[in-house]
Amino acid sequence: MADGRLTAGALAALVGGELTGDPEMPVAGVASLEEAGPGDVSFLASAGYVPQLQASRAGAVLLPPRFRDVPGGPLTRIVVGDPRLAVAQALRALTPEPSPEWGVHPTARIGRGTRWEGRIAVAAGAVLGEVVRLGRDCRVGSGAVIGDRTVLGDGCRVDAQTVIAPDTVLGNRVVLRPGARVGQEGFAWAGSGAERRRVPHRGACQLDDDVEIGANATVDRGSLGRTVLGAGTKLDNLVHVAHNVRIGARCLILAQVGIAGTTTIGDDVMIGGQAGLAGQLRVGDRAQLAAQSGVIGDIPAGATVSGYPARDHRAVLRQSAALARLAPLVSTLERLVDTHADSD
Amino acid sequence: MADGRLTAGALAALVGGELTGDPEMPVAGVASLEEAGPGDVSFLASAGYVPQLQASRAGAVLLPPRFRDVPGGPLTRIVVGDPRLAVAQALRALTPEPSPEWGVHPTARIGRGTRWEGRIAVAAGAVLGEVVRLGRDCRVGSGAVIGDRTVLGDGCRVDAQTVIAPDTVLGNRVVLRPGARVGQEGFAWAGSGAERRRVPHRGACQLDDDVEIGANATVDRGSLGRTVLGAGTKLDNLVHVAHNVRIGARCLILAQVGIAGTTTIGDDVMIGGQAGLAGQLRVGDRAQLAAQSGVIGDIPAGATVSGYPARDHRAVLRQSAALARLAPLVSTLERLVDTHADSD
Amino acid sequence: MADGRLTAGALAALVGGELTGDPEMPVAGVASLEEAGPGDVSFLASAGYVPQLQASRAGAVLLPPRFRDVPGGPLTRIVVGDPRLAVAQALRALTPEPSPEWGVHPTARIGRGTRWEGRIAVAAGAVLGEVVRLGRDCRVGSGAVIGDRTVLGDGCRVDAQTVIAPDTVLGNRVVLRPGARVGQEGFAWAGSGAERRRVPHRGACQLDDDVEIGANATVDRGSLGRTVLGAGTKLDNLVHVAHNVRIGARCLILAQVGIAGTTTIGDDVMIGGQAGLAGQLRVGDRAQLAAQSGVIGDIPAGATVSGYPARDHRAVLRQSAALARLAPLVSTLERLVDTHADSD
Repeated sequence: MADGRLTAGALAALVGGELTGDPEMPVAGVASLEEAGPGDVSFLASAGYVPQLQASRAGAVLLPPRFRDVPGGPLTRIVVGDPRLAVAQALRALTPEPSPEWGVHPTARIGRGTRWEGRIAVAAGAVLGEVVRLGRDCRVGSGAVIGDRTVLGDGCRVDAQTVIAPDTVLGNRVVLRPGARVGQEGFAWAGSGAERRRVPHRGACQLDDDVEIGANATVDRGSLGRTVLGAGTKLDNLVHVAHNVRIGARCLILAQVGIAGTTTIGDDVMIGGQAGLAGQLRVGDRAQLAAQSGVIGDIPAGATVSGYPARDHRAVLRQSAALARLAPLVSTLERLVDTHADSD
Repeated sequence: MADGRLTAGALAALVGGELTGDPEMPVAGVASLEEAGPGDVSFLASAGYVPQLQASRAGAVLLPPRFRDVPGGPLTRIVVGDPRLAVAQALRALTPEPSPEWGVHPTARIGRGTRWEGRIAVAAGAVLGEVVRLGRDCRVGSGAVIGDRTVLGDGCRVDAQTVIAPDTVLGNRVVLRPGARVGQEGFAWAGSGAERRRVPHRGACQLDDDVEIGANATVDRGSLGRTVLGAGTKLDNLVHVAHNVRIGARCLILAQVGIAGTTTIGDDVMIGGQAGLAGQLRVGDRAQLAAQSGVIGDIPAGATVSGYPARDHRAVLRQSAALARLAPLVSTLERLVDTHADSD
Repeated sequence: MADGRLTAGALAALVGGELTGDPEMPVAGVASLEEAGPGDVSFLASAGYVPQLQASRAGAVLLPPRFRDVPGGPLTRIVVGDPRLAVAQALRALTPEPSPEWGVHPTARIGRGTRWEGRIAVAAGAVLGEVVRLGRDCRVGSGAVIGDRTVLGDGCRVDAQTVIAPDTVLGNRVVLRPGARVGQEGFAWAGSGAERRRVPHRGACQLDDDVEIGANATVDRGSLGRTVLGAGTKLDNLVHVAHNVRIGARCLILAQVGIAGTTTIGDDVMIGGQAGLAGQLRVGDRAQLAAQSGVIGDIPAGATVSGYPARDHRAVLRQSAALARLAPLVSTLERLVDTHADSD
C-alpha cells in the first residue's frame, strides 16, 4: 500500500466490502467508468451510469448491493454500502496526497513570539504575525497572511493567499482554501447619511475542528462576541458569512450562499447554492434550505424549505402546480368574472 | 480614556446621552447583554432583547428612551437616541484600534517615482508600482498590489492581498478589505463566436472619499470613461460592480450584489444582499432594492422594489397574497370553467 | 500608428468602414460621446444615445448604417457593421497596452525544473512551483502562485494574486484576472454526520485556448477526471465552477453564476449573471440562460430559459402575465367559488 498498489481482495478488506471475482486482480488507480483501464478500480453509484458500467474496461468496480448482478462490465466487483465513501478510501490508499515540504521557506516572515509544535510547512512569502500559536503538522501556503495572536490547532491547512485576521481561533484540522478571508470587519453601520459610522468589530472569529472554508469565501469577525462555525461544518467557494453568525456542527453550505449578520443556524443543516438568509434569524437543526431560496423568517428544525420567501418545499410545489393550471384559464375566468359582475 | 477606561458619567457625556444611576460606575469594556460583566457597558436596541437585559450582569447599559424604565437588569442606564451609534462610540473609546507599525517593511517593493506624505505603513510583501501617489497616514497590508500611477488620498487603508490596478483614483479614507479587486478589465466583448474580441478597457476606476470595498469584492475599470463610486458608499463582501457603473454617494450595497455594466445608481440607495441589476439601467436616489431582487428596468427615485423582475414591493406582496388565496381554488375554478365552456 | 495617432481615413481603413467627411481629420484618442473632444473618435451603437451624438464635440464618430444620416453632431463619420468591434480596434491602435517588463523579478521564486520558451515577465513575489512549463510571452503578476507540473501555452496572462493548483493545463492566450482560483479541491463529501469525509480530488483542471477567468472566480479541479473549459469560453468575476464540470467552446458566463458538480454545458452557451445550475445536468449548444435563473433540469440545445425552475422563457412570460391578470380577480373568484359550492 505504501507504493500505491493493492489487490482487489485487499481493497475489499480496506473498504469493508464483499468481493466477487478475482481477489488477486491488481489495482493501481481509481478512474471513472469511461476512463478506467484494466489496472483501475471504478465505481457505480446511480442507475443512470449502468451503460457506462457495461462498457467499462475497469479491472474492478465498487457498487452498492442493488447493482451487484448487473450483467456486463467488469466481473471483479466489490459490493459496498456507500460506493462514494469507498472511492474516497480507495483514492486515499492508491494516490496518497504528496507530503508537503516541511520547514519554513526563507522568504516567509514569522513575527515575534510566534511558536508551533513539532513540524510545520510554511511556503514562500507567507506572513505570520506576532504571538501566533500553531499546533503540530500545520501547513501554510504561499502568500498566506495570519494575523497577530491567532491560534491554530493541529493539522490545519491554510492554503495560498488566504488571510486570517488577528485573534482568530482555529481548532484542529481546519482547512482554508485559496483566497478564503476569515475574521475581517463586518458590514455594520451606525447613524445614517453623512453621519454614518462604521461599527467597530472587536469580536473574533472561531472555526472549530474540521471546519473547511472554500476558495474566496468570506467569514467576518464579530462586532461584540464571536462569529462561530461548529465542528465539521463545511463552506463551499464564495460563501459569505457575516458578523456574529453562529453556525452549528456538521453543516454543509454550498457555493455562493450568503448569511447576514447575527443569524443562528443549528447542527446538520444543509444550504443549497446561492441561497440567502436575512439577519437575526434562527434556523433549526437538520433544516434543508433549497438552492437559491431566500430565507426571511425563522426555519424550524427538520424543515425543508425553498423559494422566496422560503417556506415549506411541498407547499411551494403545490402552489406552483396550481398556478400553472390556473394561468391558461385566465381569459375564461375574466369572462366569468365579467358575467358575474353583470349579473350582480 | 487613554487607558481605555471611563466612568458611566464620562461615557454618557461622550455619547451625548442622559444618565440614570451611578455616574461613578467604572466602564472598561463593551459586550453583549449575555456576555457583559460588571465592568462592561452593554446595549439594548430592540424589544426582542428585553429578557436578556433583565438577566444581564452589565454594569451599565445604553438604550433608547422607550426602554428607559424597563424593570429589571442594570440600574445604571444611558438613554440615547441611537444605541448602535453610541455603542460604536463607546467601542472606539474603550477598545481603540491598535496603531499600525509605521514604516515600510524591508520586503515591500516600492516602484520608481512613488511618493507619500508624512508617515505610511507598508506591510511585508506589499508591492507599490511606479509613480504611485499616497496622502498622509495610509496603510497597505501584506501582499497588497497597487498599480502604476494610482493615487490615494489621506488615511486610506488597503488591506492584505488586495489588488488595485494602474491609474485608479482613491479619495481620502478609502478602505479596501482583504481580497478586494479594483480596476481590472471588465467583461465586454465585441464580435461573436470565434471572432469575439475583448473590448480594451482604457478607462479607470474612481473611489471617492470614505468609500469602503468588502472582502473579495470586485470593481472593474471603465472601458471608455470611469467606473465611479461616490463619497461614503459602502460595498459589502463579494459584491460585483462592472465596468462604467456609476454609483452615487452614501449607498449601502450588501453582500453578493451584482451590478452589470454602465448602470447608474443615485445617492442614498440601499441594495439588499444577492440582488442583481442588469446593465445600462438608472436607479434613482433613495431607492431601496430588496435582497435577491432582479432589476431589469429603471427604478424611480424613492421606490422600494423586490422580486424578479423587480417592481413596487407592496404590489409584489399584494399579488403574492392574492395568488396564495387562488391556488387552493384551482380544482373548483377548473370545474367552473368547464361548466362555463359547456354552457357556451 | 506607432505613436498612437491616426487620420480618420486611416482609421476607416483599419476598421473596414466607409468614411464620410474629412479623411485628414487627426484622431488621437477614443472617448464616449459626452467626453470626446475634437481629437477623439467616439461611437454610437443604439438609438438612445442619438441626443448625445448630436451634442458631441468628437472629431469623428463610428456608427452603424442606420445612423449614417442622423442630423447634427460630428460630420466626420465612419460607417461600420459593428461599432463596438470597431471601437475595440480603434482602442487597440490608439492606446496600445503598455508592454510588460520582461524578465524575472528578483523576489519571484522559480521552482526546480521549471522552464519557459523565449521571454517571460514574472512580477515581484510570484511563486512558480517545480517542473512548471510555460510557452512564449507569458506574464505572471505579483504574488501569483502556480503549482507544480502546471503547463501554460503561449501568451498566457496570469494576473496578480491568482492561484493555479498543481497539474493544471492551460492552452494558449489564457487569461486569469486578479484573485482567480483554478484547480483547488472541490466540494464533495462521502459518508454523513460525524463520519463525513472529503472525497479526494485527484483530477485536474484544463482551460483551453483563449479562456478567460474573471477576478475572484473559482474553478475547482476534478475528483476523478478533469474539469474542462473549452476554447474561447469567458468567465466573468466571481463565477463558481465546481469539480468535473465540462463547459464547451465560446460560452459567455456572466458574473456570480454558479455551476454545480459534473454538469456539462455545450458550445456557444450564454449564462446571465447570478444564474445557478444544479449538478449532473446537461445544457445543449447555444442555449441562453437568463440572469438569476435556477436550472434544475437538462436544457435542450438552442433553448432560452428563465426563472426558477428555469423553463422556456416565453412560457414564463406568458404565465407571469396571466397571473398578474388573475391576482386582482381573487375576491370575485372566491365569491364565485362560494356560490358554485352553495349551488352544488
